[in-house]
Amino acid sequence: MSNSTFLYIVEIIGTFAFAISGIRMAARKRFDLFGAYVVGLATAIGGGTLRDLLLDVTPFWMGDSIYLIVTGVALLLVIMFRKHLLRFENTFLIFDTIGLALFVVVGIQKSLTLDYPIWIAIIMGTLTGAFGGIIRDILVNEEPLIFRKDIYASACIFGGIVYWISYSLGVNDIVTQILAAAGVIFTRIAAVRFKWTLPTLKSEEEQ
Amino acid sequence: MSNSTFLYIVEIIGTFAFAISGIRMAARKRFDLFGAYVVGLATAIGGGTLRDLLLDVTPFWMGDSIYLIVTGVALLLVIMFRKHLLRFENTFLIFDTIGLALFVVVGIQKSLTLDYPIWIAIIMGTLTGAFGGIIRDILVNEEPLIFRKDIYASACIFGGIVYWISYSLGVNDIVTQILAAAGVIFTRIAAVRFKWTLPTLKSEEEQ
Amino acid sequence: MSNSTFLYIVEIIGTFAFAISGIRMAARKRFDLFGAYVVGLATAIGGGTLRDLLLDVTPFWMGDSIYLIVTGVALLLVIMFRKHLLRFENTFLIFDTIGLALFVVVGIQKSLTLDYPIWIAIIMGTLTGAFGGIIRDILVNEEPLIFRKDIYASACIFGGIVYWISYSLGVNDIVTQILAAAGVIFTRIAAVRFKWTLPTLKSEEEQ
Repeated sequence: MSNSTFLYIVEIIGTFAFAISGIRMAARKRFDLFGAYVVGLATAIGGGTLRDLLLDVTPFWMGDSIYLIVTGVALLLVIMFRKHLLRFENTFLIFDTIGLALFVVVGIQKSLTLDYPIWIAIIMGTLTGAFGGIIRDILVNEEPLIFRKDIYASACIFGGIVYWISYSLGVNDIVTQILAAAGVIFTRIAAVRFKWTLPTLKSEEEQ
Repeated sequence: MSNSTFLYIVEIIGTFAFAISGIRMAARKRFDLFGAYVVGLATAIGGGTLRDLLLDVTPFWMGDSIYLIVTGVALLLVIMFRKHLLRFENTFLIFDTIGLALFVVVGIQKSLTLDYPIWIAIIMGTLTGAFGGIIRDILVNEEPLIFRKDIYASACIFGGIVYWISYSLGVNDIVTQILAAAGVIFTRIAAVRFKWTLPTLKSEEEQ
Repeated sequence: MSNSTFLYIVEIIGTFAFAISGIRMAARKRFDLFGAYVVGLATAIGGGTLRDLLLDVTPFWMGDSIYLIVTGVALLLVIMFRKHLLRFENTFLIFDTIGLALFVVVGIQKSLTLDYPIWIAIIMGTLTGAFGGIIRDILVNEEPLIFRKDIYASACIFGGIVYWISYSLGVNDIVTQILAAAGVIFTRIAAVRFKWTLPTLKSEEEQ
């Protein structure tokens, strides 16, 4: 199996995990099937779409219908196995984290290929990974979880910095990608495991 | 009257109906005049603007100030005839549905002209028709109605599929457009008349 | 000091003031540090980013990391001087208003340079000034303040009209920019001082 086939498969897994997270949120809000599909799709492709609009390239999903199909499969599975989903919470977390890591690496790679500087690439990697969840929360009219709950986006930024360091040291491309992805995965899993959170801002009235 | 003049007039009617829907929602939230104008405009042009950003062409309203003017007229009419609007609910529904049908057809046509495949065209047609209402609901901080209430967006997709079939069978362009628009209108009106809805997703805790 | 250095400094001040407003709103919602940074950044660069996407040019902040740095400094200052911020309310208002005025002028100039007509330029100026605040309110899941509270966006439009008149009369560029900025600042400050508001739309049920 070639490297790009491997990346493609991991990307599909990530899309699937992100779509599931959007569809489950929509189910909690009792959206209809169409609404659930749209929220799932927006969660899965929202980050990459904003990235591609900012980079002024054709949004990635407009060249391959697999992302729409995977979201449809995710919807079917949520409908069929609704009551058993909670049991797979850990599996979803792992899929979601692998997907996140790959989305970050894809976002960085794509920006560097287009000759943007590394700090733009890190922002684009973070957007690719984290913006889908923000769109999901806006669509279901909730405060974006990402701004309060855990260090999801910080994991993206940490992975980006690992990429930067490895890249600056002239390390081989594939190794750099693996290190950056490992950085995202490690930070995310450790944050969930050890309940790491970022400090909260206090409002001006508090002591 | 030529075919394109006819389409232009129908598009203006659709813009007007969409703007009215945004302005009335803003009035329910007691927005000020400016807020109401912005929500009306975003409802009317939001879908086409996202479509054009994704297709990487200049947003359609940047070439013709008629859309801004029509929104202004809609605002004036809502202010003047506020108490009589409820009586015209059915008229609005018809305008809105005709506008929706045309927006879908315009979105599909524009994508095909730019050599996108038909599945992208159907998505773009649906976005053109349905995304303005999503933006409206986000701006007034409500859960998007479209995700729960009726088969609004499904009507767009159904019209798109009619277009696809007719197009695949090599039917003449004008006839294809009319069939697709009729598909949208029929589905939408029938859905309202017979209270068709899509099934709702159940949350994981429910029996 | 050259004119463009002066404009650059004023733009940084505006970015800083907009970032502060986003970060304070995030603090009221008890977002974490990352959330506060993102809301601050989105408030500061959101309007210009939408403008640049619509004009199909590279978003301005992708060419200069100063906007990210200024937002970071704003976050640090809010953390350090949290309890003293309320005392500087008037200073923030002045910074915010100067920033707003400049954002409007920058948006107009950029559009005219790209050969768009003046009515598009006024819309782009208003978007540059006012859209960041809308994004801020969507991210913290509040109804956009701008639609109800004061004549913030109207000040942008008024400044745009001053620009238009001055420009049509063939007045020198620098003078036109100063007049337009003065129009924004005067309207905004007068609106706050004299509690000017726009009329609210009544809903259809009210008498």
